[in-house]
Amino acid sequence: MENFTSINDVKSLTDLVQKTILIKDKVLQEPRKGLNKVLGLIFMNPSLRTRLSTQKAAMNLGMDVMVMNFGSEGWALETSDGVVMDGNKAEHIKEATAVVGQYCDLIGIRSFPGLQNREKDYSEEILNSFIKFSGKPIISLESATRHPLQSLADVVTIEKNKLHKKPKVVMSWAPHPRALPQSVPNSFIEWTSKMDYDLVVTHPEGYELSTEFLNGVQIEYDQGKALEGSDFVYVKNWSSYEQYGKILNQDKSWMISKKKLKNSNNAKVMHCLPVRRNVVISEDILDSNNSLVIEEAGNREFAAQAVLSELLDNIK
Amino acid sequence: MENFTSINDVKSLTDLVQKTILIKDKVLQEPRKGLNKVLGLIFMNPSLRTRLSTQKAAMNLGMDVMVMNFGSEGWALETSDGVVMDGNKAEHIKEATAVVGQYCDLIGIRSFPGLQNREKDYSEEILNSFIKFSGKPIISLESATRHPLQSLADVVTIEKNKLHKKPKVVMSWAPHPRALPQSVPNSFIEWTSKMDYDLVVTHPEGYELSTEFLNGVQIEYDQGKALEGSDFVYVKNWSSYEQYGKILNQDKSWMISKKKLKNSNNAKVMHCLPVRRNVVISEDILDSNNSLVIEEAGNREFAAQAVLSELLDNIK
Amino acid sequence: MENFTSINDVKSLTDLVQKTILIKDKVLQEPRKGLNKVLGLIFMNPSLRTRLSTQKAAMNLGMDVMVMNFGSEGWALETSDGVVMDGNKAEHIKEATAVVGQYCDLIGIRSFPGLQNREKDYSEEILNSFIKFSGKPIISLESATRHPLQSLADVVTIEKNKLHKKPKVVMSWAPHPRALPQSVPNSFIEWTSKMDYDLVVTHPEGYELSTEFLNGVQIEYDQGKALEGSDFVYVKNWSSYEQYGKILNQDKSWMISKKKLKNSNNAKVMHCLPVRRNVVISEDILDSNNSLVIEEAGNREFAAQAVLSELLDNIK
Repeated sequence: MENFTSINDVKSLTDLVQKTILIKDKVLQEPRKGLNKVLGLIFMNPSLRTRLSTQKAAMNLGMDVMVMNFGSEGWALETSDGVVMDGNKAEHIKEATAVVGQYCDLIGIRSFPGLQNREKDYSEEILNSFIKFSGKPIISLESATRHPLQSLADVVTIEKNKLHKKPKVVMSWAPHPRALPQSVPNSFIEWTSKMDYDLVVTHPEGYELSTEFLNGVQIEYDQGKALEGSDFVYVKNWSSYEQYGKILNQDKSWMISKKKLKNSNNAKVMHCLPVRRNVVISEDILDSNNSLVIEEAGNREFAAQAVLSELLDNIK
Repeated sequence: MENFTSINDVKSLTDLVQKTILIKDKVLQEPRKGLNKVLGLIFMNPSLRTRLSTQKAAMNLGMDVMVMNFGSEGWALETSDGVVMDGNKAEHIKEATAVVGQYCDLIGIRSFPGLQNREKDYSEEILNSFIKFSGKPIISLESATRHPLQSLADVVTIEKNKLHKKPKVVMSWAPHPRALPQSVPNSFIEWTSKMDYDLVVTHPEGYELSTEFLNGVQIEYDQGKALEGSDFVYVKNWSSYEQYGKILNQDKSWMISKKKLKNSNNAKVMHCLPVRRNVVISEDILDSNNSLVIEEAGNREFAAQAVLSELLDNIK
Repeated sequence: MENFTSINDVKSLTDLVQKTILIKDKVLQEPRKGLNKVLGLIFMNPSLRTRLSTQKAAMNLGMDVMVMNFGSEGWALETSDGVVMDGNKAEHIKEATAVVGQYCDLIGIRSFPGLQNREKDYSEEILNSFIKFSGKPIISLESATRHPLQSLADVVTIEKNKLHKKPKVVMSWAPHPRALPQSVPNSFIEWTSKMDYDLVVTHPEGYELSTEFLNGVQIEYDQGKALEGSDFVYVKNWSSYEQYGKILNQDKSWMISKKKLKNSNNAKVMHCLPVRRNVVISEDILDSNNSLVIEEAGNREFAAQAVLSELLDNIK
């Protein structure tokens, strides 16, 4: 693996999932593999789980980690070519990435979409600039359109909890007070559609994801019908792709609650966190055994470690 | 020791003080004890001494450290049960603590009181949520009502500097332009009242600390009388407990100065820092040999290391 | 070497440059030299290159690093003596430095000038307080008047790229929308004037640097004439020293572009970064082989490592 920015970078999904599960069983498998290797973690946007789980994963491999919060530590980057930089951006991403690349062996980068300009966001200019100019392997810590470390952890969570061979997995939109990216749902579909799952997506009309990601997966606009017989319900809000970045609907009846699961197959509920209680998912689920959200977040460490280990193979 | 949040977690105060003194003599006693163990340091409020001294202490034990500033890195946590989280708080403390707990072997948490609602502050909801939900040993890096790492360093500072068996130790209130927590004075009393000291507390009327902490310790409202014959003067501002969080008094005559110590037993002056010069303590003391404030801050490292070492014993 | 705050701390410039070049060839020369030694990196102002390159350098030597952003982590320090500290500064630099010194073996400190008061800035009160009160070796990570780690990297960059024995090195002022410190140009002259270079400084009238730094180096007010036959052009904006901190000139014709170099000796262009494209230097240079800015930034790591290694010799 040269970079890890989407499922397209993964040679064998089966092998990567298996590797992650083995790490979950025993994290200190390769405690010296990353010795004298430095992982730079660059955050354009705040991070809790991703930062700590990836830092922990790197430590498990013996790597050193340097964390840089570009947001709060004050470094706004210009991304356009040919600009006369006399505004408030002090550095161009071409120089910033090339410089940081020299100090690191691997680079993780988080950069959220602005949700104002779809074409710009979906062009992934920040992530792609790091790939193009840093000269080092890049790990996406969530980009404008994808969150692959989350998706790998999600798949592993399903694999560890499924009770029969081909579970029914439903990804359900839920309401949220703020406009959120499509990266987690895009990525979830991209990964789970490669698994042997009965995958259904449910959301109000107008919330259709990009066909690039949806790729023929079944949409069921009736949430109740979608949830019938489900084994896993993946809950997530996102803003509209069509009317880009807009909140079209705040219908509270889309919140996932115990009552909603009555016709499910005693479904396990997942969410990438942070989750707004009693807005996205009711607390009667979050505080029950049906919730997998904590285990799912725990799996982030093992997913990151599997990916780092693969990338280290390539730079050794 | 399972957690370290107050003196009640300490089995033997004598042993812990002794252990801290031994570490002060030689910090690299157990350089591999914490190998492959991760200490997460979570700050809801800014920290200089506590952060650096605890991080250094962990390094002395071979631990890895992950620092997370929830304040400046932008993560506001909901703490109430049953709330519909449609406001500005994106995550509930139940999830945040359970998640962070999975990435760490030990967790240090700093959370100041809001000083608006006494019952809420004294219920220690943040600290207690970490204890309840993280599943890992918790070290208080100063909570709403206590600062036990400071108090251990304070006791060690007195022990290393006392010239006779039972010194007179006076804790004196001093003025300050801002409303400050009661955590340091609460904790200082809780710890020093267990030692063989002649302990006196002096402050203007209205600044009585909670009886839970005061626990029968003598209050002398006449500062001059309190300081007579004192060997150690512990200076600290706090806001009112009775009229909760209020500044009742800014009487400059309460500032501790050389002149104030004329009837003392050449008293040594202590303060947890940061200290406002010529407001809380005059510079004629801070720049003199009577000041112990720097040594006291230095002892924070050894206190943290003793506590971490004890906690590591329990998770090995 | 006891401290590293200017070229005056360097015993042999030749040896230090040579050492840096050897490290550039092989960074892991002394991977255990800094074991159990802690480098504290204190930033009063934001930093990208300096923070990451110095942290990486320390790791190459096996040191532990603690980073503290005083700016964003909220610690404003009082620096004047005798002040009644009842304003918005919670701590005096005397205590802060003495305390931090106890937790570190080496301290790096960045503190920019305020550009309001020349005497105050040029007195280097922050840097000098660290030297005076911390009790530990101090490395300047850029102070009010100098940036010696940058200058060492600059000299090494010239040494590695020069095509004949005595290159012509031109430091040229260039326009910038904000008022910037004189630290980089001051320091560049201080270091390069000790090398066997044909050194020329060019800038609009009114931008004369302090004679303390300029020290007889030739000023050529005609930029075109200065650039004739140049082998290296070091580009940098600074604000006026005479009319302290003022922007006197924003003449765009001073920007360095390909066209400007037509009478040069195919000059290589340097800049400390961050650089504003098409304001300070045109992109036809930055995207060409004439630009050394990325290599120059890369050399920051090796310069920092050479300096840390020298300082470690002294504290062993």
